[in-house]
Amino acid sequence: MSDQSRVDFQVDPSRYRHWRLTVDGEVATLAMAVDEDGGLVPGYELKLNSYDLGVDIELNDAVQRLRFEHPEVRVVVLTSGREKIFCAGANIKMLATSSHPWKVNFCKFTNETRNGIEDATANSGQIWLAAVNGTASGGGYELALACEHILLIDDRSSVVSLPELPLLGVLPGTGGLTRVTDKRHVRRDVADYFATRAEGVGGRKAVLWRLVDEVAPRPSWDDAVAARAADLAARSHRPGATSADGVALTPLGKSVEADSITYRHVTARLDRGGGAVDITVTGPDAAAPDDVASLQKLGADSWPLAMTRELDDLILDLRINEPELGTWVLRTSGDPDLVLSWDDLLYGSASDWLANEIVHYYKRTLKRLDVTSRSLIALIEPGSCFAGSLLELALAADRSFMLSGVFEDDDRSKYGAAGAEGGPAEHVPAVIVVSSANLGALPMANGLTRLETRFYGDANQLAAVTARAGQALAAEESAELGLVTFAPDDIDWTDEIRVAMEERASFSPDALTGLEANYRFTGPETMETKIFGRLTAWQNWIFNRPNAAGPAGALRRYGTGQRADFDRKRV
Amino acid sequence: MSDQSRVDFQVDPSRYRHWRLTVDGEVATLAMAVDEDGGLVPGYELKLNSYDLGVDIELNDAVQRLRFEHPEVRVVVLTSGREKIFCAGANIKMLATSSHPWKVNFCKFTNETRNGIEDATANSGQIWLAAVNGTASGGGYELALACEHILLIDDRSSVVSLPELPLLGVLPGTGGLTRVTDKRHVRRDVADYFATRAEGVGGRKAVLWRLVDEVAPRPSWDDAVAARAADLAARSHRPGATSADGVALTPLGKSVEADSITYRHVTARLDRGGGAVDITVTGPDAAAPDDVASLQKLGADSWPLAMTRELDDLILDLRINEPELGTWVLRTSGDPDLVLSWDDLLYGSASDWLANEIVHYYKRTLKRLDVTSRSLIALIEPGSCFAGSLLELALAADRSFMLSGVFEDDDRSKYGAAGAEGGPAEHVPAVIVVSSANLGALPMANGLTRLETRFYGDANQLAAVTARAGQALAAEESAELGLVTFAPDDIDWTDEIRVAMEERASFSPDALTGLEANYRFTGPETMETKIFGRLTAWQNWIFNRPNAAGPAGALRRYGTGQRADFDRKRV
Repeated sequence: MSDQSRVDFQVDPSRYRHWRLTVDGEVATLAMAVDEDGGLVPGYELKLNSYDLGVDIELNDAVQRLRFEHPEVRVVVLTSGREKIFCAGANIKMLATSSHPWKVNFCKFTNETRNGIEDATANSGQIWLAAVNGTASGGGYELALACEHILLIDDRSSVVSLPELPLLGVLPGTGGLTRVTDKRHVRRDVADYFATRAEGVGGRKAVLWRLVDEVAPRPSWDDAVAARAADLAARSHRPGATSADGVALTPLGKSVEADSITYRHVTARLDRGGGAVDITVTGPDAAAPDDVASLQKLGADSWPLAMTRELDDLILDLRINEPELGTWVLRTSGDPDLVLSWDDLLYGSASDWLANEIVHYYKRTLKRLDVTSRSLIALIEPGSCFAGSLLELALAADRSFMLSGVFEDDDRSKYGAAGAEGGPAEHVPAVIVVSSANLGALPMANGLTRLETRFYGDANQLAAVTARAGQALAAEESAELGLVTFAPDDIDWTDEIRVAMEERASFSPDALTGLEANYRFTGPETMETKIFGRLTAWQNWIFNRPNAAGPAGALRRYGTGQRADFDRKRV
Repeated sequence: MSDQSRVDFQVDPSRYRHWRLTVDGEVATLAMAVDEDGGLVPGYELKLNSYDLGVDIELNDAVQRLRFEHPEVRVVVLTSGREKIFCAGANIKMLATSSHPWKVNFCKFTNETRNGIEDATANSGQIWLAAVNGTASGGGYELALACEHILLIDDRSSVVSLPELPLLGVLPGTGGLTRVTDKRHVRRDVADYFATRAEGVGGRKAVLWRLVDEVAPRPSWDDAVAARAADLAARSHRPGATSADGVALTPLGKSVEADSITYRHVTARLDRGGGAVDITVTGPDAAAPDDVASLQKLGADSWPLAMTRELDDLILDLRINEPELGTWVLRTSGDPDLVLSWDDLLYGSASDWLANEIVHYYKRTLKRLDVTSRSLIALIEPGSCFAGSLLELALAADRSFMLSGVFEDDDRSKYGAAGAEGGPAEHVPAVIVVSSANLGALPMANGLTRLETRFYGDANQLAAVTARAGQALAAEESAELGLVTFAPDDIDWTDEIRVAMEERASFSPDALTGLEANYRFTGPETMETKIFGRLTAWQNWIFNRPNAAGPAGALRRYGTGQRADFDRKRV
């Protein structure tokens, strides 16, 4: 699969092959009707509303657009456009024939999309209702689990099920095991029985076991869905905006060359020899408008929204298309004060629906970075603007370097300052600034801010840093406060970074993935960290074991009529 | 390694090959001096105080005996009996040549032992002090991390390090990644740098980075250790018992036959054809004494201590010696009232040091069961005594069956009632009883009781169950309260259990391991669940990947002079 052409995450409803999106006042309906012949990669048919990455790319697009383009929508009804089948989950043949990295990447993205559905319900007041009008099995049921409410049709044949273990010898990989117990509070022995019962559960028993919230028979199905949607809409806290206020997510300007990917505010230079990518986020070129009403006029052109969309797309692009580029170097370029002017506007206007959406979108994009299996190194140099919201990029990094002083000459290595074009800023030492954007609005998956995570268990240090909010901090001070890892001067800079980069590139990529997945989520755990940290790790292991992926494994033998041949040793 | 003779977990200080245990008043010293030629399995030398399972079996024994045999000990000094080396961690050649199941089992046991050290510090007031008198690398540093306080010798050569990632392409697998950030509050970027720096960190920098608590130079080393030990002893809450009160952990009576393992209170029948083990715990044959002082006289013969030691040994034995027996059937046999009389004595006497030790030991044994990668099925039949502390066995199970009514005739399958020898109890329906033992004293690794875990997010149901504490509950009532999974009657019992057993045996063992590891720890996470759930799962994955375990992988090539050849794709 690695030979296929570049996967593109940009799409819009006019090009959907697998979904039908309709909006009727405060209720949107998203109907899944997967085109069997529309697989992203040749070699499988997407029967029974099963999905592959391409189907989920459209779903992700729909989740995003509903939030930005449809402020009037308070309820999203997720249903099937097919008869008797809601969704059969991830396509088995696709999984069985995919490489391990592809499977893992696919699962990560689908998990992020489902978390995005929960985020829309929680933070946009766009409440998702699963109208399960046919059987929902495996990933199909997990999709319903991401919704706030599950209504199942009661027709003596439609069931919900998690048949992965009995049929395929793998786990439900999109949060199913975590959500049944931790979200829906299904008792763990009942959950165990359910996940080993390939045939699933329907009707009243599905309600009794808490697998769904309610059932409705076919004759009254449409009324039941409409009634539940109206009820949920009444509970929504979405601000009373109208469709006229929506912001169109216009196509991104993106140029992909052999060794670069360029957007308006974000650029990536691909260093294939060094196994690295140099990512530069450029700050705003003007101060934010004075009032939040002007945000609406700027729409998708406003710096924070445009930058976030570009960064989000770049992360997705590099993750799936450039797996061998194992280190991402994060830089910024611009004026810290201009970044802070936008932060002031956005982070002080949480009651404005659009400001709220932009902040949550940036939050989700940073979360995507947190679960990205690449080493993240932030370089903070003269001309950079790691202030407030952009400082989060450095705080998300596994390690950061901040130049103490300035570069004394222009004879810099490739890891020297990039970005600004010879302006005077390069002759002024870099500073970083903590702002209100770092103090609560952008939590990680563990529920803590990146600063809280960084200073976990060290309330004094956190307080010392918080007390300096709004102040420009030079390198030595930043290092002393623990905000950056190292603060070398001009003499050591080039060598120190070269060694760090070369060293990182020499390590086992798998061990780095495991290390980073452990260190990035210090402290408390949540359903989200359990899904990415625990469930995913177990699934990765199982996907690698002969009992699943070997020639006689359950995943490979599914549908062949042959039973899997298991090594019975328990590990 | 699976061909070797049976691993035995029973040992005593007179037979230690690798440790020297000395007790001087309230301070015990445990010095590691590993016998290079004393490997448990042929094929490697235990150089530089590196360890294998045999070394850790002795360590586990020492941790246990100190708690029971030395009530006067308040501080345990863990140090090295070798020059300039504290401990080099798990033996690399042993790891490189072991099978995957052996490695995973080995890591699980060593993790449990280190958790046991923390449990002794927290719950026995036996505070562990790591006197790191030479370099502590990898598992050697992780051993120190399990101690409450780390004192490192400052001699310009001794360091602490986690070199697994740079040298071996695997993770520190004994909780190191979790403990540096979550226990010692090392900043995550510093922790990242530390874990990629094979040469480690010593002296003042190790203190500055919080990797150790203090350093002391060689000339004043002994004084520094003694002073710190005295300080910690003064902080201990251990009740002021004397050495005369200690309870000797006498050798266990154990008989191992081809298809059975028999102790006094615990028996296991091995069903190799069915891939299962039938475990029966027999209740006490007499009521508990009236007062806690009598416990002392009974010593290791008291029912709860003897039963716990036997169950603990059986779990360890089956886990490593019988990996193909994937389902454990848990039964009890005896009089529920007699079990409750012991619960009354123990769980009402937390201030007595010996009662406290027995309760915490049983707690740890149940935790061992929770992290055991076997399907656990509890069968509750007439003649059983699933009351209070023994009810925890059923609550630990993935699924439980309780017979409704009695067996109408004796024509029962092999899954019919076992244990009691034809006494009248078999003609009385089984009951279960919730007691104070279920309401707080026996938490799981997630910090919740098994009842709280079972009814996670359902406070009403938990309250309903708690309100019935002390009452004998029949099958229908138990099922209604959610205390058992199924309550079939005599007519369905045999078939239902046969089907469940056969089905379980037909599933992928790996997928079952992953499923159970996810479902058993509903709700909040702790350092312990992170170690077993997240860190272990990542390590399992890495251990399976060619970059570590393949012929050109880092683990296999270590020490050969050849560099590992990595597939650079990030997953």
